[in-house]
Amino acid sequence: MGAHTTTVRVRWSDADPAGIAFYPRFFEWYDLGTEALFEAIGLPWPELFPRYGIVGVPIVESGSTFVAPVRYGDTVTVRSTVAWVKDKTLRMEHEISVSGTVCARGFEIRAWVLRSSESGQPLRAGSIPEDVVRRLAGSA
Amino acid sequence: MGAHTTTVRVRWSDADPAGIAFYPRFFEWYDLGTEALFEAIGLPWPELFPRYGIVGVPIVESGSTFVAPVRYGDTVTVRSTVAWVKDKTLRMEHEISVSGTVCARGFEIRAWVLRSSESGQPLRAGSIPEDVVRRLAGSA
Amino acid sequence: MGAHTTTVRVRWSDADPAGIAFYPRFFEWYDLGTEALFEAIGLPWPELFPRYGIVGVPIVESGSTFVAPVRYGDTVTVRSTVAWVKDKTLRMEHEISVSGTVCARGFEIRAWVLRSSESGQPLRAGSIPEDVVRRLAGSA
Amino acid sequence: MGAHTTTVRVRWSDADPAGIAFYPRFFEWYDLGTEALFEAIGLPWPELFPRYGIVGVPIVESGSTFVAPVRYGDTVTVRSTVAWVKDKTLRMEHEISVSGTVCARGFEIRAWVLRSSESGQPLRAGSIPEDVVRRLAGSA
Repeated sequence: MGAHTTTVRVRWSDADPAGIAFYPRFFEWYDLGTEALFEAIGLPWPELFPRYGIVGVPIVESGSTFVAPVRYGDTVTVRSTVAWVKDKTLRMEHEISVSGTVCARGFEIRAWVLRSSESGQPLRAGSIPEDVVRRLAGSA
Repeated sequence: MGAHTTTVRVRWSDADPAGIAFYPRFFEWYDLGTEALFEAIGLPWPELFPRYGIVGVPIVESGSTFVAPVRYGDTVTVRSTVAWVKDKTLRMEHEISVSGTVCARGFEIRAWVLRSSESGQPLRAGSIPEDVVRRLAGSA
Repeated sequence: MGAHTTTVRVRWSDADPAGIAFYPRFFEWYDLGTEALFEAIGLPWPELFPRYGIVGVPIVESGSTFVAPVRYGDTVTVRSTVAWVKDKTLRMEHEISVSGTVCARGFEIRAWVLRSSESGQPLRAGSIPEDVVRRLAGSA
Repeated sequence: MGAHTTTVRVRWSDADPAGIAFYPRFFEWYDLGTEALFEAIGLPWPELFPRYGIVGVPIVESGSTFVAPVRYGDTVTVRSTVAWVKDKTLRMEHEISVSGTVCARGFEIRAWVLRSSESGQPLRAGSIPEDVVRRLAGSA
């Protein structure tokens, strides 16, 4: 299906005293973009996580460049794609724009993390199941 | 002064249904680490921003790797350093640990952004004033 | 127009380690409900605040009862009404439900606060302009 | 022990484009005040909740009046007391001040909620154990 697009209104609480969206909010929007893509390909998180006994698909690495500010009142478009899927990890790429102007580009590498992971221990990742891989790859 | 260290308690609201800190929170802690370092070298943001007529020091680029989860109840130590200072930008590096175990490492490139920046326009950065450079460089 | 209804998806970051939405989030949703009602009657905040030289319509008093939990994955319906409008203040009432089940009921008393309000000082409220009163009253 | 006092720095992300702390943050601070009081009397939540098999002490009712704004850069003092403890519920009262000026007063009625509570169902509260009541009452 290529890219999945979702939109988010910038909330009053997303903007800081400078009127600019606080930068960790962009990562929240990347997270929402990933969740929306999963849902669009039939893998809604609230069902996916318990069904496969995972804590979720937490982040191993993430990064972003910021090229133009986002402000209160803007409607943000998050365009998300699956860049690749490996045995235990996957890479998402995101582009955030307002009215056609790109404001930020980012990525997330996420792992398929089993519920048994212990506090204070490194996350223990498992193999992403075949049918999940197929759906994600089909969307790439 | 080398690295500046600040501590943050992981709040109930920082942790998600998996009991793990939501990853954008790490960037909020990097932001707090940067702010704490500025304050420690005599540049508290609430005074700095109006005094120099800047909207702040917004992010141009940021990234992080995540190696171990942080959980509700943990006390997070953020160790922050100024990696370099250029004409209009500076690079912060951060390490987040819990009880001596490194959980994440990240960086932020921030720009000295003038108050005149317009909505929808790219951020307009200005030269970081000499005395600010000196303090930041002295801490590097 | 009577009540205005807006919907919000419960985000992963809205839920706590118990899987239940963190209670201050309900007040964020009340805030979104108020903002959505204002927008629906032709008073979008990003335009309204600068046009009338106000800092916004901050809260003087707020309260809520919580009768059933809201969880990650739920879609929340916020039903908002203007209960009354006085010279400098107005009262909003909100009901939050999920799939027809009422989860919380709350209210907000908000003031029309002028931009001149100083730090550390009580908020200085002004009279709500006639045309704003008319629109709000028309929606009550 | 009477009142328990905890302090919180107002973060950049707590303040909105008006430079004023977003009002749901006050309820987050009340929550932190309650948690800090519990910890001060030997009932830290990260240990308390699993030990007693509860999801936590979620809110049944909460309210606040707001008398003066809190701004970015302020250090907030949260003064929390246990007003009463009943069979399944307890009432906390909070006062938020900055440099001795009271900015807000609020309360929380919280219930002792068992882990068996089901999604979409009303919260199922149980009796607060004797030793917990004793500690809370001792602090009242």
